[in-house]
Amino acid sequence: MALSKKPVNGMKDILPEEMQIRDYVQQVIKETYRSYGFTPIETPCMENIANLSSRQGGENEKLIFKVMKRGEKLKLAEAKEEADLVDFGMRYDLTVPLVRFYANNANDLPSPFKALQIGNVWRADRPQRGRYRQFMQCDIDIIGEPGNLAEIELILATTTTIGRLGFKNFEIRINDRRILKAMAAYSGFSGEAFDTVFIILDKMDKIGMDGVAAELEKEGCAKESIDKYLALFRGAAEAENGIRYLASTLQGFLDGETEQNLLEIIDSVEAAKTADFKLVFDPTLVRGMSYYTGTIFEIAMPELGAACGGGGRYDGMVGKFTGNNVPACGFSIGFERIVLLLMESGFEVPMQRPKTAYLIEKGYPAEKLSEVIARAQAERQAGKQVLVVRMNKNKKFQKEKLAAEGYGDIVEFFKD
Amino acid sequence: MALSKKPVNGMKDILPEEMQIRDYVQQVIKETYRSYGFTPIETPCMENIANLSSRQGGENEKLIFKVMKRGEKLKLAEAKEEADLVDFGMRYDLTVPLVRFYANNANDLPSPFKALQIGNVWRADRPQRGRYRQFMQCDIDIIGEPGNLAEIELILATTTTIGRLGFKNFEIRINDRRILKAMAAYSGFSGEAFDTVFIILDKMDKIGMDGVAAELEKEGCAKESIDKYLALFRGAAEAENGIRYLASTLQGFLDGETEQNLLEIIDSVEAAKTADFKLVFDPTLVRGMSYYTGTIFEIAMPELGAACGGGGRYDGMVGKFTGNNVPACGFSIGFERIVLLLMESGFEVPMQRPKTAYLIEKGYPAEKLSEVIARAQAERQAGKQVLVVRMNKNKKFQKEKLAAEGYGDIVEFFKD
Repeated sequence: MALSKKPVNGMKDILPEEMQIRDYVQQVIKETYRSYGFTPIETPCMENIANLSSRQGGENEKLIFKVMKRGEKLKLAEAKEEADLVDFGMRYDLTVPLVRFYANNANDLPSPFKALQIGNVWRADRPQRGRYRQFMQCDIDIIGEPGNLAEIELILATTTTIGRLGFKNFEIRINDRRILKAMAAYSGFSGEAFDTVFIILDKMDKIGMDGVAAELEKEGCAKESIDKYLALFRGAAEAENGIRYLASTLQGFLDGETEQNLLEIIDSVEAAKTADFKLVFDPTLVRGMSYYTGTIFEIAMPELGAACGGGGRYDGMVGKFTGNNVPACGFSIGFERIVLLLMESGFEVPMQRPKTAYLIEKGYPAEKLSEVIARAQAERQAGKQVLVVRMNKNKKFQKEKLAAEGYGDIVEFFKD
Repeated sequence: MALSKKPVNGMKDILPEEMQIRDYVQQVIKETYRSYGFTPIETPCMENIANLSSRQGGENEKLIFKVMKRGEKLKLAEAKEEADLVDFGMRYDLTVPLVRFYANNANDLPSPFKALQIGNVWRADRPQRGRYRQFMQCDIDIIGEPGNLAEIELILATTTTIGRLGFKNFEIRINDRRILKAMAAYSGFSGEAFDTVFIILDKMDKIGMDGVAAELEKEGCAKESIDKYLALFRGAAEAENGIRYLASTLQGFLDGETEQNLLEIIDSVEAAKTADFKLVFDPTLVRGMSYYTGTIFEIAMPELGAACGGGGRYDGMVGKFTGNNVPACGFSIGFERIVLLLMESGFEVPMQRPKTAYLIEKGYPAEKLSEVIARAQAERQAGKQVLVVRMNKNKKFQKEKLAAEGYGDIVEFFKD
């Protein structure tokens, strides 16, 4: 078979121009998160397939790239089903690997543990424009902090980072899974119907109140419950403080701690924020993953229809590995979307070094070349970026291209 | 099945202490290589299995982690052999993907193209101490430069980087595949025996002249050829200039260009080098990969038995993808070995920000917490790293651990 020039279906090559922006975004992320005491860690890109298929990953578990067993362990003739042939899988997020990492290394880690992960994940989604099957995620997590200090620090760190990348007027939407559940219970939906209700609620942005009502009815929900449910959202939206309104209305369904918790987060973030954003309570915020147990949040950018990152509290997951529950809370930045927004806005990475190109004419004597290279070395030592290349036949075109790459200074070396 | 805390067999979790060194090494590498005009790129971690199995990868092709087809494409019942089930594979090096990348994107790239890649590769080697099945490679390559300006720049960039990382007294060994071949031909070995001869020659470091002679004899090589061959190495070692000696002895087997090429590289590097190393001609240097066509080189560290990186010229590989040969030359730094050496030497990463920890007593009032967090925000803005955590019951132990993590300054906030 001839060699294929294309990357594998659904994944992409990253060219210098995009790479420059990616490197810059990574650098700002790392520097900012470090200033909050988050420490970088890494896990292997593969995990044991059993860990990836443990229902922590929700829908993503259907999208796993699976790695075949090797050598003697691969028994092709005896295999009855896919599972007999597979031992590892590519990670589809950074949360499941982080929790495994924590369970494996807790004794060697500070408590609470503030982790920063930047790494690729893989999902075998149907390839589509602008969405790739390998993409970078960038997560911060705090493991071992039960109180809302975790949420406050995560939101401040993330918004500061996004602000440093030049974004303004964005929104952080916040809610609590316990409020979601209390609202559904108060309205009279049965516990088994909650997931369906939340999936429909999640479309509020797109289909509005009437659309949500229609879909709930189609699912067979009682008219009375639907009316009661939607009245809650209307009431919260009209109230001076939606959280206080819901807390008092939902008495008996929601404990007071949830209200206090959210109000404190909002107050502290408002008092200490450095970026230009609004922190908004949004009772329609759902966040898909079923592992969330408390606060949930999402970044909404005015430039984007979709969310640009999100996270929440998942106090139950560590226990799946260790038997002992440890509180945990995380925030994931939509790295690929941020890069895309910066690319589309024509963002230029701040130049780090002045750039000079040396053009060497063909036939330039070897003994003199040494001197030229030594001069380049000295300029590099002094902080410049120096490119040493042969002069092309079409010098004019070469110089134009170099100028476009940012080589403001071009020095020519002729053989005579 | 219970969830497993361990990483997959043969791969490892990277803890904060190591991660700090890895990040630092990457940063030095990127900064230094950028000053030479290398531009970062990235390719997907998976490649089409046909590209990975095209004999460019030598022995590494036996070690591919293979990715199963998905959905309808996976026809388990009809599969007769492994190949029927697999479409992608994990890359085992960065050279094959680079060449595919270049073939795919040449029109959008500068010429010559100077690429920097830092990324993980995967090899399903038998797990062993200190060797992992996922590891980071760090390559620079120049595609489109036929002359030794490529070799000179690659060697200067790599040695400058290694020097900046604090290494001294290392050696760059250099040779040329054309000299290797000429020596074997001159000695009377048959063309088919060359690969066997080179595999044995590669052990010279460990088994010496006598060992090499014995193994060649065992392989059925003629006594006369062996004597003639070893005499060449002795002659080169005793000569004032090994390259000149071999070039004159091998007349008729080696063209003059090879001699000139190597001498120029050595002169230019010696004249312009900034790190403390020796560039040494070594006619016993083989480098395993069969794709090399000209100059080859290797880094030898006094601290290490093994090589710590290497590379060479591979003018034939681009043509495998495009039909048109394009000259190419690359140098790969042994990233994992460098990290290991730094870890073992007790290397401490230069501190970037002063580190302060705030300890908050349990029960500290929420309204006052906002002020503390705002103060942390201000300190972070001013360039400090500030960790805000709850005060543990065993405060003494907590403070000791924080001090060990580099938090020189600890501020306590009591509830009253």
